[in-house]
Amino acid sequence: MSLFTLQKSASSCQARRGELQLPRATVQTPAFMPVGTQGTVKAMTFDEVWELGYRLILGNTYHLYLRPGSERVARFGGLPKFIGWDGAMLTDSGGYQVFSLKDLRKITEEGVTFRSTLDGSKHLFSPERVMEIEHELGADIIMAFDECPPYPATWQYTKDSLDRTLRWEERCLARHNALGGDSTGHLLFGIVQGGSYDDLRAQSALAVSAMDFPGIAIGGVSVGEPVEEMRRITALTTPLLPAHKPRYLMGVGTPSDLLDGIYYGIDMFDCVLPTRMARNGALYTSQGRINISNARWTDEAGPIDPECDCKVCRLHSAAYLRHLHQSKEILYSRLATYHNLAYYAKVMEGARAAIEQDTFPEYRRACYATWGLALPPDA
Amino acid sequence: MSLFTLQKSASSCQARRGELQLPRATVQTPAFMPVGTQGTVKAMTFDEVWELGYRLILGNTYHLYLRPGSERVARFGGLPKFIGWDGAMLTDSGGYQVFSLKDLRKITEEGVTFRSTLDGSKHLFSPERVMEIEHELGADIIMAFDECPPYPATWQYTKDSLDRTLRWEERCLARHNALGGDSTGHLLFGIVQGGSYDDLRAQSALAVSAMDFPGIAIGGVSVGEPVEEMRRITALTTPLLPAHKPRYLMGVGTPSDLLDGIYYGIDMFDCVLPTRMARNGALYTSQGRINISNARWTDEAGPIDPECDCKVCRLHSAAYLRHLHQSKEILYSRLATYHNLAYYAKVMEGARAAIEQDTFPEYRRACYATWGLALPPDA
Repeated sequence: MSLFTLQKSASSCQARRGELQLPRATVQTPAFMPVGTQGTVKAMTFDEVWELGYRLILGNTYHLYLRPGSERVARFGGLPKFIGWDGAMLTDSGGYQVFSLKDLRKITEEGVTFRSTLDGSKHLFSPERVMEIEHELGADIIMAFDECPPYPATWQYTKDSLDRTLRWEERCLARHNALGGDSTGHLLFGIVQGGSYDDLRAQSALAVSAMDFPGIAIGGVSVGEPVEEMRRITALTTPLLPAHKPRYLMGVGTPSDLLDGIYYGIDMFDCVLPTRMARNGALYTSQGRINISNARWTDEAGPIDPECDCKVCRLHSAAYLRHLHQSKEILYSRLATYHNLAYYAKVMEGARAAIEQDTFPEYRRACYATWGLALPPDA
Repeated sequence: MSLFTLQKSASSCQARRGELQLPRATVQTPAFMPVGTQGTVKAMTFDEVWELGYRLILGNTYHLYLRPGSERVARFGGLPKFIGWDGAMLTDSGGYQVFSLKDLRKITEEGVTFRSTLDGSKHLFSPERVMEIEHELGADIIMAFDECPPYPATWQYTKDSLDRTLRWEERCLARHNALGGDSTGHLLFGIVQGGSYDDLRAQSALAVSAMDFPGIAIGGVSVGEPVEEMRRITALTTPLLPAHKPRYLMGVGTPSDLLDGIYYGIDMFDCVLPTRMARNGALYTSQGRINISNARWTDEAGPIDPECDCKVCRLHSAAYLRHLHQSKEILYSRLATYHNLAYYAKVMEGARAAIEQDTFPEYRRACYATWGLALPPDA
């Protein structure tokens, strides 16, 4: 059984329709992964995440390592079992979080030493240690430990960082294999870096493609660069990756970002946007993003999205959602998150159907139009 | 059709088993009402409240009058429709909240003027105005506007307050009848006050019993008095109330308070405890109240209550709940609230079954024993 089955490729863009056969679940691609940072998709139960059609969610190694601790999670049989999720999981490497710590961390060839944001205690994340932690967390897909350079960064900084990341990825592979490798049910994906430099991106894509990873991620995007930059990086990277391996664009994005990524050949995405933005009052709808705190919703008896058939839109008025938001009620976060994840699921379902019918560019154009956005020129 | 059917009375205590036939739902009594202060039972969906067996919930007039506003709620067809709750509702009169405002309110014979805690705006709650507001909110049961005196209060203060409350209740009845009376589907309940003074409680109970209310509440309890005081007031009041009218002990209480109330003849209760305490980390279980932040739960693979068959106890370990609590995750509040409301429902279900079998005192004694509490002497 192969991990990834490529079922259909679009004729006039790079979009692909496939299936990821993970140890715990089969996932239809292109797929969006909701983020469960601390062992919960914020405000949701796993029943709800499942009923929305999601079969693969992300957990954050940095947070879970610090609390409740990866050893404890291992004693409970791994993260999916600890949290009660019947689907598949992916853990990031914690790299993005520890590099974000700025004053609290120090990078060496060995790895990154950092101080916990919870209690100030000192820790080392090295490629080897992160592999051990991710094996303890026990997700279906585990990510290699990389450096995610900031934006902007100089060519030289990015080059040095990339070269170290490539060495770290080799060390990840070695430790992962020493721990039993992919046959443990924890599949190690590599990560392409290289900042916003075409030559470094290409070098990274070719180097990571040559390593023995069953799937490849594009990292170092969605770190503050203009969206055109993200599209350009994606468009230049995917053609350099092996067609038979799944491609994962990390930390992306808005609904339009997802369609752009798919257009350029991406199979997997994760992002906190639908859940975080929901809690902050922003709802993704067939009419574009709306802000529920806007007074225009005060007396709106219809749902937040008249074209949405999710449970929230079927049962509740926009006025009630706005009331809950203004009253800072937990139910607001629940309903808003549920709707946003339902909308993301719908956009992705539409994308998969469109690829099957080889009408993805038309689908993308139509979505952009209903969102009131201008379709960007090809990257 | 009568509002209240008394089905069974205990032979050795005052406990009663009955049925409340409200416009929107039939409610088995003794019943506990979850509190939905701002138009939501905090952290719950109404589907969940319903699946736990609740058919009657409370909304707070003070909060809903200020936001989203009772006129707006009326335009949406009333509170149950606005919030999407298929069961029955009760609104309090707002009296408890406005009297709690202390420096922000002024009491006259006319009513209470107060400043909004939301925006400082000035408002008047009079018996007539509150009836109009409660008709707008449109609950099945609406409560008369009373003064809830603080604890402790002098006899003279309590006497003056009670006399005014009785005059206010007459004015409530007059306005309620002018608005269409109980045939509107909004049944007006009276409230017994009298503080901790037996003579005033008796005066109030007899006076309110003589008025044309289909149900009677005991107010002014759970305001800081010792629990013995609450039991004594309840025990002396219920025998003075007409047997054919439902009796509602306002703002009560812990699971043991509920069993005490039932023992002394109460049919209805409401309290924020199961929902508020849940969010603060306190869980009611068959082993008594536990605090989930306690380190003893860190590695507990079993549920928070091994004898509970609620969804949370079936699906999740105490260790996971503790992790969510320590991580301040919304899912913690959801699961904890769900469990506490499930436990309250179970205690009440057990109480109803025990009254049917005329074994309520034994049931109460057994519950106290499993909670590790001493059964109080008869009041």
